[in-house]
Amino acid sequence: MFSIVELIGKKRDGERLTDEEIRFIIDEFAKDRMPAYQMSALAMAVFFRGLDDRETATWTDAMLRSGRVLDLSDLGAGRVDKHSTGGVGDKISLPLAPAAAACGVIVPMVAGRGLGHTGGTIDKLEAIPGYDVALTVDRFRAVLADVGCSIIGQTEEIAPADKRLYALRDVTATVESIPLICASIMSKKLAEGIEGLVLDVKVGPGAFMKTLDDARELAARMVAVGREMGTRVVAFLTRMDEPLGRMVGNACEIEESVDVLSGRGPADVIELTEVLGGAMVELAKGVSFEEGRARIAASLKDGTALARWNRMVIAQGGDGSRLPKHSGEVAIVATRAGFVQQIDGREVGLVAVQLGAGRARREDPIDPAVGIRIERKVGEQVAVGEALATILTGASGVPSAELMARLGAAFGVGDEAGPVRPLILERVG
Amino acid sequence: MFSIVELIGKKRDGERLTDEEIRFIIDEFAKDRMPAYQMSALAMAVFFRGLDDRETATWTDAMLRSGRVLDLSDLGAGRVDKHSTGGVGDKISLPLAPAAAACGVIVPMVAGRGLGHTGGTIDKLEAIPGYDVALTVDRFRAVLADVGCSIIGQTEEIAPADKRLYALRDVTATVESIPLICASIMSKKLAEGIEGLVLDVKVGPGAFMKTLDDARELAARMVAVGREMGTRVVAFLTRMDEPLGRMVGNACEIEESVDVLSGRGPADVIELTEVLGGAMVELAKGVSFEEGRARIAASLKDGTALARWNRMVIAQGGDGSRLPKHSGEVAIVATRAGFVQQIDGREVGLVAVQLGAGRARREDPIDPAVGIRIERKVGEQVAVGEALATILTGASGVPSAELMARLGAAFGVGDEAGPVRPLILERVG
Repeated sequence: MFSIVELIGKKRDGERLTDEEIRFIIDEFAKDRMPAYQMSALAMAVFFRGLDDRETATWTDAMLRSGRVLDLSDLGAGRVDKHSTGGVGDKISLPLAPAAAACGVIVPMVAGRGLGHTGGTIDKLEAIPGYDVALTVDRFRAVLADVGCSIIGQTEEIAPADKRLYALRDVTATVESIPLICASIMSKKLAEGIEGLVLDVKVGPGAFMKTLDDARELAARMVAVGREMGTRVVAFLTRMDEPLGRMVGNACEIEESVDVLSGRGPADVIELTEVLGGAMVELAKGVSFEEGRARIAASLKDGTALARWNRMVIAQGGDGSRLPKHSGEVAIVATRAGFVQQIDGREVGLVAVQLGAGRARREDPIDPAVGIRIERKVGEQVAVGEALATILTGASGVPSAELMARLGAAFGVGDEAGPVRPLILERVG
Repeated sequence: MFSIVELIGKKRDGERLTDEEIRFIIDEFAKDRMPAYQMSALAMAVFFRGLDDRETATWTDAMLRSGRVLDLSDLGAGRVDKHSTGGVGDKISLPLAPAAAACGVIVPMVAGRGLGHTGGTIDKLEAIPGYDVALTVDRFRAVLADVGCSIIGQTEEIAPADKRLYALRDVTATVESIPLICASIMSKKLAEGIEGLVLDVKVGPGAFMKTLDDARELAARMVAVGREMGTRVVAFLTRMDEPLGRMVGNACEIEESVDVLSGRGPADVIELTEVLGGAMVELAKGVSFEEGRARIAASLKDGTALARWNRMVIAQGGDGSRLPKHSGEVAIVATRAGFVQQIDGREVGLVAVQLGAGRARREDPIDPAVGIRIERKVGEQVAVGEALATILTGASGVPSAELMARLGAAFGVGDEAGPVRPLILERVG
C-alpha cells in the first residue's frame, strides 16, 4: 500500500516512480479506488516531469493488464501490426493489412473510429454492407488463422484503464504528454498479442505532432519503450501537409484502397503502404527492409494482396460489391491559376465531418456515401474554373455555399510548383 | 463563457490568465460546475507555472467573494489582523490581539483549529470554560465595538471556495504552491474587512517554509498581492527551530499568554508579540514601527492589555478563573550533561498530539488540560538527571514510555551553548 498523494508529490518533485508504485496507481485507478482528481493532478505532474523509458513501460504494462490480453502465439510467429497517429485521407491500414498478410505477416489489427478532423478505419470498413467490426475473440482468431489479417474495432475488454485515462486527459489538458501518448498507444496495441509494431508518426501543422522534434521524440520513446517490453518497434516520420491519396470519406476511401490493392491508385498511398508494409515484413520475416518493401510492392501488383482483402471482407460478413453510392457531385473550382502549394488537411477533414463523413461528437451518425475527391494535389497545376476538389454528396444533398467556400479556401494556389518534398522523412528504430 | 480545458491548457503552457478567466474558473468551481479533476489539474499547472501578482490578486478576490465579506467600516479606521504560517507553542495571537486593541487597533480575528503538529488558537481559547468561538456576525461586531478585539473560529460563510480548494489541494500534492498559499491566506483574511495585515512567516526545518528563500518569496508575494488589492501587508520572517515560549498545549498556553499580558512570561513570546503588535500599531495608527512596538510593550506592562483580554473573554462568555488543571506531572530528564542546542518543534508538537493536546484527524477530541512544559530552551544548560521537559498529564494518566522517550529525543544536547540566533530574521514590506 502506498499513499497516492505522496506518489503524486514524488512525481511532482521530479523523482522516478518504482514499478510497484506505478502498478499500484494504475490498479487503484482501474478499480475506481483512486479518484479522478488525483489522476488528473498526477497526469499534469507527468506532463511537466515526464516518465523515463522504464516508468513508461511499466505504466503501459499496467494499463494493458487492466483488461484482456490476447495470446495469439498458437497462430505462429510473425504477428505485427501498424499504428498511425492519425491523418486525413489516411486509409493505409486497408491496403496494408492484406498486403502484409499476403507476404506471410499475421496482422491482428484493432482499429479506431474517427473523431474530430481525422477519419477512422472502422468507420470506413462499416461502409461495406455486412462487414462486422465487432467479432468475438474466437471469430477474430479464426479469421486470422484463415486469412492472416483481420481488422476489428476496439472492445471494452482491451486496456480499460487507458480508456478511462484518455477520457480524463481529454478534459484536463493533459493529452499532450509524450510518455502518456506512448503508454496509451502501446497498451492497446500490445494487448493484441503482437511481436512487432510499425508506427506512422505524422508531422505537420494539421497533425498531432506539429514539429519534427516532437515527432522524433515520440518515435524514439515508442522504440525505447518497445525495447523495455520486448516488442520491436520501428517508426517512420511521414509528412502530413495534404490529405493522403485523393479520397476523403468512407465508401470512397474503400474504393481508393481497392484501387491500390489492384496495382493502381495514388502514388503517396502506394508509397506509404510499401514502406510501412516493408517494415512489417522485415520485423515478421527477418528479411531486409528493401526485400520486405519489394515483396509488398509485388503483392499489390500480382493480385495476392487483393485476394487477401476479398477473403477478409467475406470472412467478416461484408459484401464489397454493394458499396453505397454518392447522390451527386459538386465541383469546387479554382479562382486563380497556378500550382497547388498546400492543402490544409485539417480543414478538408473538418469539411468532410460537416458533410457527414465524420463525427464531431461520439454519438453522431455517419453518411458512408459522402466524401471529397481531391482533384489537384500539391504540386499540380490548375487553371481558373478547373476543379480543385469535388464534393461527393449524400442523402442531405448539395452542401451550403459557406461549406463549399471553406473547402476552396483550404487550397493554397501560387505561381510556382514549389520543391517536391519527400513523403517519408525519417526512420527511427 | 470560457472552455475550462482550454484555460487549463493556457496555464499549462505558461500563459497568463485574464481577470475574467480567473473569475470564471473560481465561480464555476465554487458553484460545483467545474469538476474537481479539472481544478486539481489546474492547481498542478499553477504549481509549475505560477501566478503573477495580478493573477494571484484576482484569484484571491474571486475566492473571498465566493462567500460573505464583512464590512466593518462603521467601527472606524485602523482594522488590522495578524496571520502566522503556523508553529508549535505559537500562542502569539492570544496576548497580541488584546495588546493591539489596548493601543487602539481594531482586531477582527478569525482563527483556525490545530491540525497535525501545530496547535490552533481556537482550540486554546476553548480551554476557557464558556468561551464562545462561534459568535454570530452581529455578536462579533458588538464585541469588536466594545472591546476592540474579538477572536472567533472560521465559519462556513467565509471564502467557501478556498475551503473546497484547500481540501482538494491537500489530497493532490498541490499545497506547496506559493501563489495558491498566498491566495488562500489572503482570501480568508480580507473577508474580515481589514485594512492591513501583519504576517508571521515561520522559517525552519519543522515549519511550512523550510528555507529562507521560500519564506522570502511567500512574504514578498503576500506584500505584492496586498498592494494589488489595496491592503497594506507587512511580513516578518521568524525563526522556528524550537517551540515558542515554554508551554505547548491548550490550557497551559492560555496561562502562559496571561503571564505575558501581565508583564511576565518567556522572552521569545514577549519579543514576537511586541514586534508583530508594533507593526499592527504602525499600520493602524500611522506611527513608526519603533513607536508602535514601544506602545505594545507598555500595554503589556501597565495592565491595559490584560484588561482588554479579560473584557474579551467575558464578552465571549468565558470564565478565565476556571481553566482545567492537569492531573499530574512527569519529568523527562537529560541523560547527558551539556547545553540544549536544538529542540525539534515538530516532534514536540506530534508528542503533544499523542498526549491529546491536538488532533491527528479533524474529528478527534482534545484534552485541554494536557501539555508539555519546556524546562530547557535552546542555549540553556542541563545536568544529567535534570528535566528537559515536563509532561502535564490529563484524564488518560501517565503516558507510555515510548512517548516519553520520543519527547526526550526531540532535545539535542551538546557540549557548547552555540551562538545566540535572532528570533526575527527579516522584515518584508
